[in-house]
Amino acid sequence: MSFTAFDPRTGRPGTRTFEDASAREIAGRVAAATATFQETRRYSGRRIGEVLRSIADELTAAGEAIVEVAERETALGRPRLTSEVGRITAQFQLFGALCEEGSYVSAVIDHARPEATPPGPDLRRMLVPLGPVAVFGASNFPLAFSVPGGDTASALAARCPVVFKAHPSHPETSEVCAAVIREGLRRVDAPEAMLAIVHGRGTEVGRALVLEPDIRAVGFTGSLRGGTALYQLAAGRDEPIPVYAEMGSVNPLFVTEAALAGRLEELATGFLGSMTMGSGQFCTKPGLAFVPDGELGLRWAETVAAGARRLDPGYLLNQAIRDAVAAQLERTGHLPEVEILAGGKGTDGPGFRYPTTVLSVDAAAFRQRPELHEEHFGPAATIVRYGALDDLLELARLVPPSLTASLHAEEGEVEALRELVELLEQRAGRLVWNGYPTGVAVTHAMVHGGPYPATTIPLHTSVGSAAINRFLRPVAFQSYPQPLLPEELRDGNPLGIARMVDGEWTLGPIRDRL
Amino acid sequence: MSFTAFDPRTGRPGTRTFEDASAREIAGRVAAATATFQETRRYSGRRIGEVLRSIADELTAAGEAIVEVAERETALGRPRLTSEVGRITAQFQLFGALCEEGSYVSAVIDHARPEATPPGPDLRRMLVPLGPVAVFGASNFPLAFSVPGGDTASALAARCPVVFKAHPSHPETSEVCAAVIREGLRRVDAPEAMLAIVHGRGTEVGRALVLEPDIRAVGFTGSLRGGTALYQLAAGRDEPIPVYAEMGSVNPLFVTEAALAGRLEELATGFLGSMTMGSGQFCTKPGLAFVPDGELGLRWAETVAAGARRLDPGYLLNQAIRDAVAAQLERTGHLPEVEILAGGKGTDGPGFRYPTTVLSVDAAAFRQRPELHEEHFGPAATIVRYGALDDLLELARLVPPSLTASLHAEEGEVEALRELVELLEQRAGRLVWNGYPTGVAVTHAMVHGGPYPATTIPLHTSVGSAAINRFLRPVAFQSYPQPLLPEELRDGNPLGIARMVDGEWTLGPIRDRL
Repeated sequence: MSFTAFDPRTGRPGTRTFEDASAREIAGRVAAATATFQETRRYSGRRIGEVLRSIADELTAAGEAIVEVAERETALGRPRLTSEVGRITAQFQLFGALCEEGSYVSAVIDHARPEATPPGPDLRRMLVPLGPVAVFGASNFPLAFSVPGGDTASALAARCPVVFKAHPSHPETSEVCAAVIREGLRRVDAPEAMLAIVHGRGTEVGRALVLEPDIRAVGFTGSLRGGTALYQLAAGRDEPIPVYAEMGSVNPLFVTEAALAGRLEELATGFLGSMTMGSGQFCTKPGLAFVPDGELGLRWAETVAAGARRLDPGYLLNQAIRDAVAAQLERTGHLPEVEILAGGKGTDGPGFRYPTTVLSVDAAAFRQRPELHEEHFGPAATIVRYGALDDLLELARLVPPSLTASLHAEEGEVEALRELVELLEQRAGRLVWNGYPTGVAVTHAMVHGGPYPATTIPLHTSVGSAAINRFLRPVAFQSYPQPLLPEELRDGNPLGIARMVDGEWTLGPIRDRL
Repeated sequence: MSFTAFDPRTGRPGTRTFEDASAREIAGRVAAATATFQETRRYSGRRIGEVLRSIADELTAAGEAIVEVAERETALGRPRLTSEVGRITAQFQLFGALCEEGSYVSAVIDHARPEATPPGPDLRRMLVPLGPVAVFGASNFPLAFSVPGGDTASALAARCPVVFKAHPSHPETSEVCAAVIREGLRRVDAPEAMLAIVHGRGTEVGRALVLEPDIRAVGFTGSLRGGTALYQLAAGRDEPIPVYAEMGSVNPLFVTEAALAGRLEELATGFLGSMTMGSGQFCTKPGLAFVPDGELGLRWAETVAAGARRLDPGYLLNQAIRDAVAAQLERTGHLPEVEILAGGKGTDGPGFRYPTTVLSVDAAAFRQRPELHEEHFGPAATIVRYGALDDLLELARLVPPSLTASLHAEEGEVEALRELVELLEQRAGRLVWNGYPTGVAVTHAMVHGGPYPATTIPLHTSVGSAAINRFLRPVAFQSYPQPLLPEELRDGNPLGIARMVDGEWTLGPIRDRL
């Protein structure tokens, strides 16, 4: 089957045609990745760091060309796409530094305890790569959550070759980025088969890729339905493998009366900016805002809505997303309890546009209407008016677990909010205080994850340095001779990494023991 | 449905009758665990440490009573069961110490970087408990992998209440142990609902437990079929949850010519002891031994077999295990290429006995007969004679991934063995040098896990302190005020735990920054 991308601004098909990968092509890519893994799994941290930095350099050099094609396929705008280039290069650099430093293997050494009952053997553990990884790109971040994105960078950092299922909304961007990455590999004599891409418009190519026996893990960013289906598909394989799917999220935002009293305008502007970023197509878009019922809450809602009405309708990434949000708002916007404060119906003219839409309901309606609890992927949000704090706690329990939960309040309210924060801690991966959830920093402490339906496996993050852990498994060596141990586990600690030795964190070599 | 346990020595049913838990009982236990979780999730490391130590104390005090009933239900013998009591109490103490020390939450702090592009927020991450956990006990370790075992200890250490599906082969042992643990909870005013047990002879009770919506993770030790079925069942829930199943394993053992030349007798005695430990009912039993074809290999095989023939037939845990291994050996033992060196047919007399069985094949037969690659759970092992080292590498690739892989060789052979070790590293969780895989030390560096079919999720271990990670998930706090942060993430580091701050490991408080 062949397909083209579309220009979201005009709705017209692109000039280049792409073909669904055949079963034979998919198997060939995986076979090449599997063969390459036997080389890359031996890479030292220094070597893989060199590889990742080389990729970062090539992405930087190709930045303008990448933005050019991504803009044509996504209409996200040059400033946003330029910042995405900055993000992906910084990400490859971060993982490069992580690997060069080397402590990410979590080395743990327990010396023999011959005097114990039963005697304890010499045991040394570290993390090793899982094997070839399949990654699925998202439509909404053609760079940062696509071919040159966090899943690719963290899998390569773990020394796992990647076979990437490109998103059909930006196939050319994917091709260009893959070529740039392969140039980065070539430049330092690393095998090009560390990254391959396959195209596919429907679900068949992706399913075939996940079912390839040599694939050992899957990274995915996309819809709840897609991620869940792949997770279950992989669980049913002869050898089940993990699917790390980062999926839909409503990202509730809670505002107290005191916060509104002090900074109503600022909170309206901030919220509107966050919910419309990238035409509302962020996984972390705040889709539900809880404000106190009463005069301040109503004024805030009206301020948000007035701002929304002034905005030009944004372009969505493809027709499917535009049609889905339009159909969803056709249902939820016309519930009898729902007031449409802004937007709410389609826009004429060419391209995949939809106006910024703000709905408003009271607490009773929110309780009764589960369809309002669901993510509306696009430039839409629902404002929910709550009564007392107890009311808010009850409403918060109805919100599906999310990637994030944001809270706008005053420092003096800390004690009153403790119970809400404890609840949110159980229902989100990242809690934001007096800020907005869009914008996911690539650092050590980031958690871009959360309980289902935010992700399929809540033990991990797909952004930040800990994302590498998804592609590593522990192995222990018992009573092994020094020359057969990986350098990370040898007595002399030749790499100078942080290790837990007999229960204590150390940096230096193991001292002689009596 | 009601059932009894059986005395393996006589085959006679026990006097006490147990009932399959009803749907209502299962739901009630989970509801109580879920309510209790809202209390236990707040426990400090010090508090949970106190709880775990109290349980350890009660288990120690009740040790003789526990051994008494376990011996009646399992026939594993007092010395072995007494050592299991030592193991479980040490395990609760280890997790107690881990929690009291506190660094296991993996606290990571990244300070705000307002000067960066884009500006980096203050982000602080730590691990928090997942929620109520279901655990399935194994038949072969009525204590260490059952009610008072590692899954229970690590889940409770993570502050997750446990609903335990007791194994129907030792229901009374399970009841006694649960009562002792609950006494330990009571003694320090912790809620008894932190541990509940349910009985069930078939698969219905377990399936119902895994499908309870408030269960957040599952620990399992048992058969490949059972573990895989539960993994897939949990993947198909409305909210998928992880099933950490530790399952069958063939645990290959490789012996070089040089090792045989130096210590043939010792290696025969050691292997026979390891393969018959607990009547061969260890997850880590070495079920396949690869020895060089030729005079030494044949002599070694004959020495093992002679020892095996001298052993009294061991008691198996229940009739199902006895019948399964008998039926399996009926097939594999009578393949035309297989030589039966010892045992291989059933034993008269009362109880669930089977003689120690040693099969022998050459490399060609092993290649042709996949049924020889499968675990024989019970006192049986297959000796495979290999030619050159290349032959051994090829044979090793046919062995299913295992919990362990053992290698007996001389120090001088290290370089020649490098490729084999690299292969084993990809196919086992623990690599043993000049030792035997039975005996799993409860330490920081232990890995009791491995690629499927050894486990369903190879990223974890079910033994050792890292087992706690299966029941924790990360959460990040962005720009949060100090009083709303958990103590683990506050600037002053009041708990004095190890934390990664701005990429560096630290132990003290965060210093003031300019």
